[in-house]
Amino acid sequence: MALAVSKRFLGMEEVTSGTLRKMKTKLLALVERLRVGADSFSCFHLLIFILKRDAQVKIMEGTVNNAEKYLGQFCMLLASYARKNARLRDKVDLLVRQIMDFANTENPELRRCLKDLGEELSKIQDYRQAEVERLDAKVIAPLKAYGPLTKSKRADIKKFNSVRNREIKELENLQKLKQRNPLDRQGIVSFPKAEANVQKASIDVNHTTHQLEEIILKFQQQKLKDIKTIFSNFVTIEMIFHAKALEMYTNAFQHLNNFDEEKDLKV
Amino acid sequence: MALAVSKRFLGMEEVTSGTLRKMKTKLLALVERLRVGADSFSCFHLLIFILKRDAQVKIMEGTVNNAEKYLGQFCMLLASYARKNARLRDKVDLLVRQIMDFANTENPELRRCLKDLGEELSKIQDYRQAEVERLDAKVIAPLKAYGPLTKSKRADIKKFNSVRNREIKELENLQKLKQRNPLDRQGIVSFPKAEANVQKASIDVNHTTHQLEEIILKFQQQKLKDIKTIFSNFVTIEMIFHAKALEMYTNAFQHLNNFDEEKDLKV
Repeated sequence: MALAVSKRFLGMEEVTSGTLRKMKTKLLALVERLRVGADSFSCFHLLIFILKRDAQVKIMEGTVNNAEKYLGQFCMLLASYARKNARLRDKVDLLVRQIMDFANTENPELRRCLKDLGEELSKIQDYRQAEVERLDAKVIAPLKAYGPLTKSKRADIKKFNSVRNREIKELENLQKLKQRNPLDRQGIVSFPKAEANVQKASIDVNHTTHQLEEIILKFQQQKLKDIKTIFSNFVTIEMIFHAKALEMYTNAFQHLNNFDEEKDLKV
Repeated sequence: MALAVSKRFLGMEEVTSGTLRKMKTKLLALVERLRVGADSFSCFHLLIFILKRDAQVKIMEGTVNNAEKYLGQFCMLLASYARKNARLRDKVDLLVRQIMDFANTENPELRRCLKDLGEELSKIQDYRQAEVERLDAKVIAPLKAYGPLTKSKRADIKKFNSVRNREIKELENLQKLKQRNPLDRQGIVSFPKAEANVQKASIDVNHTTHQLEEIILKFQQQKLKDIKTIFSNFVTIEMIFHAKALEMYTNAFQHLNNFDEEKDLKV
């Protein structure tokens, strides 16, 4: 029997050709491992079912792995962004100190102008400090929480895999028993204990799969909600900072505009 | 004769008590150096004149030194500020790349939302790049130009000091000649060559002082104008950047707000 495994047949239209190729290879390996004859049609259908379920779990695993990888990257990069902003704040604080010192060496008009400028710059750094603190609390901390969360989801997948391996083992056992004993006239041999074990393992694995599906669905729901919230927080924090900075720079521009150098030259 | 040197007497109301104390010390040192007797009233007045002129040059020197020191500091700190901004841009560029990669692993709604967010963040980094380039051209470069400028002004002051030292030397020579020769009956001795040298040196020093006054006045005018321009440039560049960032973040907020996670969960 030719292995015409199509995406539609597997009920997973979204899988890529690459994934499909890999699945074909795995199916052939399973056929080999369980020594299923090309004529053993019902067993072949069981394998397709296992493979389909495995592919679904693979997708769930991908979801968890991507979340771990990318949310981890976002966390690291945004923490670095916050730190770099803190360094920018320190640099402007130094600049403000120098502006204030310089103001004290100058005549009244420039002195007043520079002090006003320094104060506006200083206020911007206060807002920058608030930006850094908010980023830490409302963006970086929730992203960091995804580390332990994805770890726990991976543990759930591991649990599924061990249950699923037990099922495959029971199937192997049953196949071995069948191959050791020649067929009777009706072509039927019965191994009640081994068949009961396979059935029990199948029930277990179905139960675990169902649990896993629910866990990953909840995780996915939470993840989508969190991504929206975290990035909205990020954008809002930045909007507040930029709006405040714009306001302060507008004031600073006014102070500079009002500075009349002629008055100082008359002194 | 008591050395009652007051600020008013020196015609420099703006000098501080500290400066006044230093001037008293210098005056006493000059009296000692030129061996002026407490009775040599006319010579004492000449010393006061020299000292007053020296104090004025000291103020000019202070103006140039402060400009060199503080504008140099501003240049260094703002260059560092620009570099730190460039690093912030690089960090967000990396974040954008990760957001785009993550978008490709997600379902259509989140994918579109993340790509839109990434594009807005990317545009902000383009504006940040423009900010860095403008800071370099319109703030840091003109501040840097003050390095050679203040150096040339210091050379002018050095030139004045050497002319002024020649004058003091000629005065010393004259005093020595007078002390070596006892007074005639009218209490007058005459040393035509030495007196002519003193007069020539005095003319030179007055000419140089006048030149120096003009140079420093022009420098001061230019400095006030430049400080106003440079800081106005800085503030304008920052205003443009923050206004643009605010605009892009507002768009990003809209994209996030439009993201409907339910649609993705249905997929």
